[in-house]
Amino acid sequence: MKASELAAFLGGTLEGENTEIYACAGLEEARKGDLSFCKDPKHVKLVETTGASAVLLPPDWTHGAPCAIIRVEDPNRACMKAAELFAPPEPVRAPGVHPTAILGPGVTLGENVHVGAYTIIEKGTAIGDGAVIEAQVFIGENCRVGARTHIYPQVTLREGTVVGADCIFHCGVRLGGDGYGFNNGRREDGSVYIEKIPQLGIVEIGDGVEIGSNTTIDRARIGRTYIGPMTKIDNLVQIGHNVKVKGYSGLIAQSGVAGSTEIGYGCLIWAQAGISGHIKIADGVQVGPQAGVPQTLDGSLKYVIGAPAMSMKDMAAITLAPKMIAKLKAEIKDIKAKMKV
Amino acid sequence: MKASELAAFLGGTLEGENTEIYACAGLEEARKGDLSFCKDPKHVKLVETTGASAVLLPPDWTHGAPCAIIRVEDPNRACMKAAELFAPPEPVRAPGVHPTAILGPGVTLGENVHVGAYTIIEKGTAIGDGAVIEAQVFIGENCRVGARTHIYPQVTLREGTVVGADCIFHCGVRLGGDGYGFNNGRREDGSVYIEKIPQLGIVEIGDGVEIGSNTTIDRARIGRTYIGPMTKIDNLVQIGHNVKVKGYSGLIAQSGVAGSTEIGYGCLIWAQAGISGHIKIADGVQVGPQAGVPQTLDGSLKYVIGAPAMSMKDMAAITLAPKMIAKLKAEIKDIKAKMKV
Amino acid sequence: MKASELAAFLGGTLEGENTEIYACAGLEEARKGDLSFCKDPKHVKLVETTGASAVLLPPDWTHGAPCAIIRVEDPNRACMKAAELFAPPEPVRAPGVHPTAILGPGVTLGENVHVGAYTIIEKGTAIGDGAVIEAQVFIGENCRVGARTHIYPQVTLREGTVVGADCIFHCGVRLGGDGYGFNNGRREDGSVYIEKIPQLGIVEIGDGVEIGSNTTIDRARIGRTYIGPMTKIDNLVQIGHNVKVKGYSGLIAQSGVAGSTEIGYGCLIWAQAGISGHIKIADGVQVGPQAGVPQTLDGSLKYVIGAPAMSMKDMAAITLAPKMIAKLKAEIKDIKAKMKV
Repeated sequence: MKASELAAFLGGTLEGENTEIYACAGLEEARKGDLSFCKDPKHVKLVETTGASAVLLPPDWTHGAPCAIIRVEDPNRACMKAAELFAPPEPVRAPGVHPTAILGPGVTLGENVHVGAYTIIEKGTAIGDGAVIEAQVFIGENCRVGARTHIYPQVTLREGTVVGADCIFHCGVRLGGDGYGFNNGRREDGSVYIEKIPQLGIVEIGDGVEIGSNTTIDRARIGRTYIGPMTKIDNLVQIGHNVKVKGYSGLIAQSGVAGSTEIGYGCLIWAQAGISGHIKIADGVQVGPQAGVPQTLDGSLKYVIGAPAMSMKDMAAITLAPKMIAKLKAEIKDIKAKMKV
Repeated sequence: MKASELAAFLGGTLEGENTEIYACAGLEEARKGDLSFCKDPKHVKLVETTGASAVLLPPDWTHGAPCAIIRVEDPNRACMKAAELFAPPEPVRAPGVHPTAILGPGVTLGENVHVGAYTIIEKGTAIGDGAVIEAQVFIGENCRVGARTHIYPQVTLREGTVVGADCIFHCGVRLGGDGYGFNNGRREDGSVYIEKIPQLGIVEIGDGVEIGSNTTIDRARIGRTYIGPMTKIDNLVQIGHNVKVKGYSGLIAQSGVAGSTEIGYGCLIWAQAGISGHIKIADGVQVGPQAGVPQTLDGSLKYVIGAPAMSMKDMAAITLAPKMIAKLKAEIKDIKAKMKV
Repeated sequence: MKASELAAFLGGTLEGENTEIYACAGLEEARKGDLSFCKDPKHVKLVETTGASAVLLPPDWTHGAPCAIIRVEDPNRACMKAAELFAPPEPVRAPGVHPTAILGPGVTLGENVHVGAYTIIEKGTAIGDGAVIEAQVFIGENCRVGARTHIYPQVTLREGTVVGADCIFHCGVRLGGDGYGFNNGRREDGSVYIEKIPQLGIVEIGDGVEIGSNTTIDRARIGRTYIGPMTKIDNLVQIGHNVKVKGYSGLIAQSGVAGSTEIGYGCLIWAQAGISGHIKIADGVQVGPQAGVPQTLDGSLKYVIGAPAMSMKDMAAITLAPKMIAKLKAEIKDIKAKMKV
């Protein structure tokens, strides 16, 4: 799209070359063909060195730019509007079942459901109105998927999984695996045994839950592994059997929650954090990146970090220990010197 | 199922409303329609606040319950029995090859093998008696899969993978990927090169191994990456090329083992732990959650924690350093005060 | 293959039994039927205890071996040559589109492209000459895949993904997922809201990039998440939206990079390391295993370790704190004793 057309679309004015624009990007990553934006003169250096072909700037910008300028009232907002223009069009998943999809006996589909190619839905499963089940998905027996839920390609739901409305599951999500459950020990004759514990429960997902690529959530030993409404889970997260996430919480990439733990409302579990089994995280608590939580957090700390997880202050004290030690060492040296006098 | 029917099935007696029961759950997560259980009066508070519709209690329970009661001799055992009743029925994977499965030339199937829809088994591969290869699986050329091994949907086995009998692979398991192997450096002219090292070996899995969802195990550079018998691997675990796990060990979720490392018999690698390459973990050693093991553990420590991995005692000393420092600081202040006198 | 044939093939001489050889392996993991190798007499103990059926040794080896010996000039090199012989033959992916592959309207394939069974390529996507798209792959609308790029089974590329030439994507790679992006807070009436932020950008992968099994790379919020040329990414790695990896870098297994971070040329991010969002890692910096990087690394440190990431020296000081404290304690005790005198 020509910069002039873009300027007209955004209600701005073009200065400089009427260059061709293909995409939006931040000032630093932008390259030829990109539109970027800046609102604040404090980023003038980034504007001066940007590789963009055009930049959205406010009317009162006096620092120039090394490329075409489109002046608009609100550069951030204008760039978002332009980004929507350049975004790959969202694929249309029209209602209908692809002829290669395989639906078992007793499968019920609501109105306007999309089922993609090579998808398998096994017997007794019910899919709600307006749900989109993309290609190459596997949904086992007797599952329920709520209205308008969108399941991207190559997701697997094992038998009995229950999913609410308005959920989004990204590629490679695995719901309802057996998880890790074994009895082991030694028999009287000294030989070792390892026996699988049957995992008889299910996974239940509330409304409005989003689950990132390749995240795994295990079925319960008995009862349900439960992810409450509006919980947002990032990529490559592991949730063990019988975990209960009450709802409105976030779990960032590569974090893990061990079996039977309960996570309260409005918690935020940062990336790569690990939470032990059979404990509770109180409502609203944040667990910092890479933190390891060995026991219940009752909410008296709102943010924990480190392993074992502690307050920021306690963590800082450990990190500062070498400095404190050096100081004490100097004082002791000083005392000794004085004593000899 | 009516509570009265359930009571009869479990050999117990019903007190209170003959309510409808749909599932089992622990006292805390239970809700309307759930059966829960309690054996020990010390959990009386959890019984009093449970949301269950009925609860299994011992004959001598005198504390009542806010819902129907079914009295049985052993509430835990009875609840497991009930859980089996309510568990989603295990899907039947009858012997036979789905018409959409694609089998290459020279593929041999044992007796009573199940091959699911849209599964691909490439030439020269042999599947043992009673194996279940579910839908949408990919098994490359010249693999061997042992008797009764169960492979869930969307697993991939690259060419040459050898799998024992009685294994279970959950959805999204990846066996035989190339792993990370590159030669890099600078040429005489100063330019950088990065060359792929051919990964010529295979993955070999012993009997009775279970592998969790989305776990990845790389093929060997030469020879085999080997997972010994009865090893149990959780979800999202990474095993590098030429790793050797002798057997009867457990690797919990999101742990990782770098290339050419050997893990002894009966080890337990806890969640999110990382083990460096080219080292050995002696038989029976446990590596704690999030621990980082940079060098061989010869078994003189039975449990390590922290990064670099150390004993519990050494780890505690680091965590307690700030307290110790504060104590020394006070003592020095005291000495100084006395010296001035 | 007979040991004598192998000796002839490798230009060596056989001593001892003309045994049958099936595979190559290191001295320690080798078992009956394996060929192993040793060059250096310092490993004589490993030779003495190897389970191999034959071992490649240099002409001047005088320590014998518990199995057949094949003497060659360069045992390491000879073993690599033999390993190629025993390696599972690389599957032939001949040009052509499998009849079960589904290609949308406007898909263009270069010359000699392979498209495997049950693979889906959606409308408007272009695949370059000589590319291999294996079975059960999903490539969304309007993607571009460069020449000779090899995509293994069960990879998913969401719409708009751009991939360079000569890339390798292993099984289960997920490109272009939405990532984690939400606006949340409280409305004036006190109720909580969590709104999805549209992810309007794409993923762009440079030439020669290799991506390991089950690794996930999120699409940009606007613009592109960019992985520069020759970057090598291991298994189970997470790359957030709008991350920029300039090129010629390595990211080892289970590491993660949060949104909008830039990684310079020639960096090495070791296993399980985590890098925060909106920061920069300077060219050539290495981030150690399990390190957590909260802020920009400007290159003044070439290697960091720990969380928060620091120099090796600073890390050592923390680990040594308990020892230093014990020493100071002894000195204080000594001072007190003297003062009393």
